[in-house]
Amino acid sequence: MMHAALLSVGDELLLGQNVDTNAAWLAARLAELSIMTVEQRTVGDDRRAIAEAIRELSSQRDVLVTTGGLGPTLDDLLREALGDVLTPSKELVTDQGALEHLEDWFAKRGRRMPMLNTRQAFRPSVMRCLPNANGTALGLAGRLGECQIFSLPGPPREMQPMFLEHVVPEIRRRPGELEEVILTASVQEFGMSESEAAQRLGPLMERDRNPTVGTTASDAIVTARLRSRGPKPIAQRQLDETVDAVERAWRPYSFGRSQSLGESVAKLLRQSRQKIVTAESCTGGWLGKVIVDQPGSSGYYLGGWITYSNQAKMERLRVPADLVERHGAVSAHVAKAMAQGALDASGADYGLAITGIAGPDGGTAEKPVGTVHIALARKGGGKSDSIARHFEFPGGRMEVRDRAVKAALQMLRFALLDVPTTTPLLWEKIEGARTQVARVHASPSP
Amino acid sequence: MMHAALLSVGDELLLGQNVDTNAAWLAARLAELSIMTVEQRTVGDDRRAIAEAIRELSSQRDVLVTTGGLGPTLDDLLREALGDVLTPSKELVTDQGALEHLEDWFAKRGRRMPMLNTRQAFRPSVMRCLPNANGTALGLAGRLGECQIFSLPGPPREMQPMFLEHVVPEIRRRPGELEEVILTASVQEFGMSESEAAQRLGPLMERDRNPTVGTTASDAIVTARLRSRGPKPIAQRQLDETVDAVERAWRPYSFGRSQSLGESVAKLLRQSRQKIVTAESCTGGWLGKVIVDQPGSSGYYLGGWITYSNQAKMERLRVPADLVERHGAVSAHVAKAMAQGALDASGADYGLAITGIAGPDGGTAEKPVGTVHIALARKGGGKSDSIARHFEFPGGRMEVRDRAVKAALQMLRFALLDVPTTTPLLWEKIEGARTQVARVHASPSP
Repeated sequence: MMHAALLSVGDELLLGQNVDTNAAWLAARLAELSIMTVEQRTVGDDRRAIAEAIRELSSQRDVLVTTGGLGPTLDDLLREALGDVLTPSKELVTDQGALEHLEDWFAKRGRRMPMLNTRQAFRPSVMRCLPNANGTALGLAGRLGECQIFSLPGPPREMQPMFLEHVVPEIRRRPGELEEVILTASVQEFGMSESEAAQRLGPLMERDRNPTVGTTASDAIVTARLRSRGPKPIAQRQLDETVDAVERAWRPYSFGRSQSLGESVAKLLRQSRQKIVTAESCTGGWLGKVIVDQPGSSGYYLGGWITYSNQAKMERLRVPADLVERHGAVSAHVAKAMAQGALDASGADYGLAITGIAGPDGGTAEKPVGTVHIALARKGGGKSDSIARHFEFPGGRMEVRDRAVKAALQMLRFALLDVPTTTPLLWEKIEGARTQVARVHASPSP
Repeated sequence: MMHAALLSVGDELLLGQNVDTNAAWLAARLAELSIMTVEQRTVGDDRRAIAEAIRELSSQRDVLVTTGGLGPTLDDLLREALGDVLTPSKELVTDQGALEHLEDWFAKRGRRMPMLNTRQAFRPSVMRCLPNANGTALGLAGRLGECQIFSLPGPPREMQPMFLEHVVPEIRRRPGELEEVILTASVQEFGMSESEAAQRLGPLMERDRNPTVGTTASDAIVTARLRSRGPKPIAQRQLDETVDAVERAWRPYSFGRSQSLGESVAKLLRQSRQKIVTAESCTGGWLGKVIVDQPGSSGYYLGGWITYSNQAKMERLRVPADLVERHGAVSAHVAKAMAQGALDASGADYGLAITGIAGPDGGTAEKPVGTVHIALARKGGGKSDSIARHFEFPGGRMEVRDRAVKAALQMLRFALLDVPTTTPLLWEKIEGARTQVARVHASPSP
């Protein structure tokens, strides 16, 4: 099994400015090539620290991929650091092809090349440049001992195509290595806590299994990460079997293999040929945004209303004033009226409405921050046919709204799949009972 | 100057499942304590790899902070790895306080403690537990040689308060170290490319300056990161002066020190006492969401319309059918009519509308994917008083919509600040001219 290391370069990563998504993406792509990423490091824009990291990470590794540090500005020092490691005491050379690429780039945009960008044509003499169709920074490729080194720009939309088109074909495989592969898959769920989700998996999570299964929770989505090793056909079969086992254990909360909640709902809506509209208060358009994130949403989404004030709810969605007076804007009654109003104004089949208190202000003892009512109305059904759930979401303004959007999508998914409406969702408040939580019903499958 | 290293633990980080935000946050907090983070590493859920990383990262460092690996499941191995390093061949002990915390946690939620969670009460005998008010995983604190080790859970909403309340007070400073501080600040801009933004900074970006200034671009926002070292009052003054210099050089595209575009616009709207409404097509609610992200937005946001079809535009915003027929839904005429329709239906002062082709489908030679028209209408002004800009944004569905939201906010910001409407924005298409780009007007200040 070949081993890789990843190096991310940039002060912004160590200062808290930027979050590094490149390492995660590269590790996933390398795994698809049966190359196991064993380490990832981040260093700042310090020439010596970068050079030291390059030396350390390339020793005893087959592949080192660096990202960042290839921009035009004076804090971009990766080229210099590579030169220090690969050609000590020698100057960087100017790559003619790189220079032409840079001149072309600016000419096409009707601009003169800024002086600073000339630095992007330099490279160590023993390395060659990798083309960049989406930016000015050329990549670099070379070798240190047994380790192949590839250096790519930081911005993902430049780095990713370069990796796929110019690095993957270059990675030299050791003979006999083609046999064993690493295959990965993930399954996600919303509505059970991580502990309960893990409990349902039972022995699937034992460390000496193949595939291994691990769980993480992030923004209320619990992900099972599966990793299978072995000869390809066997690894594939074992992976598929374990994915099925995880999905069975997590039914009905899990929404499919390697797909998001939004993608799952989009697929179901397309197949159902139903149309939906949205009515949002505290989420402010977040639910509509997530629906429209999916290409082809114009096939089922008729749009929405962001009714951020009581007046807007009453004027634009015909929510009766007396409902607002008696129960308050954040209530099951008003949520249902919003959903029904959106339905009536559009002719859609489903209306999905969210009203709540996102915080930090606005909470009371009776309706604390995190109180959210979500309603789903169905065309043809009367008021009794719409369902509303009452939640108390933890966290701050972003978390409450994020969980509300996810809960709304899960409610719609449940309706499209005919999941019983009594199926509880995490953080739901059921009238007259203690806080209901997702209970473990099924025994975990081995 | 004290030095720190950060270790992130978790297969999900190396498999591409999760993006690590903890390292960035911790590095920023440590910098505020004048502790320089010199390295960050990520390892998987592998007991031996974790132990090796702990040994290496703690040698020659003052502080090591680890995140992750403290969950209840069998792939959470950090406690075991710490034991291997700090108390080789000895078993982990059960911490009574931790056990009580766990039992309490589940009792409060009306649940029995799952068996798996017992693992979260184990620790190496030479470490002590750190309280966690927001989760089941206790943190750990100890020392290896001269290095203080702190281990915190992965989820940010648990990790961050624990770091602030239980790690910061514990970090032992070396005598005489109190003198020199590291102070950081950032300034962001939207509307100029990174090259042009850097060019305007000129000598501010030289490496031997204090503070240092570096730039990065991420999702079309260019950030200048400033880092100032020295005795506190001097470092503070130099930082403030350089922040001012950066803001002057980037006028009017930069929107304030250490604040986002959304926060900047929110502040201006509050001060202006004006009300706004939104009308969105391809962005699907994203603009409304970003506005409502800001607490207190109910003071100026009267809500919005997500008019995702031609019919919705005509029915709900009274966009004239002949405008749609003659110019198409994606046109300056329709954008202006959407903005005006939202104004008329609400009594707001400003109406902001976006219509475009996000892709991947829908593009033509005349109107390719990325074509977006954004209009800002003002109450009391006629059709001639509304402004519309025509953009061609690069990238895919998410990028086009993200840039459209940012451009809309910048247009609103320009209007609130009386910035001339001839001030170009990156990716704008001006009629009858080559693609206009943000030109360098001001000379960089030294």
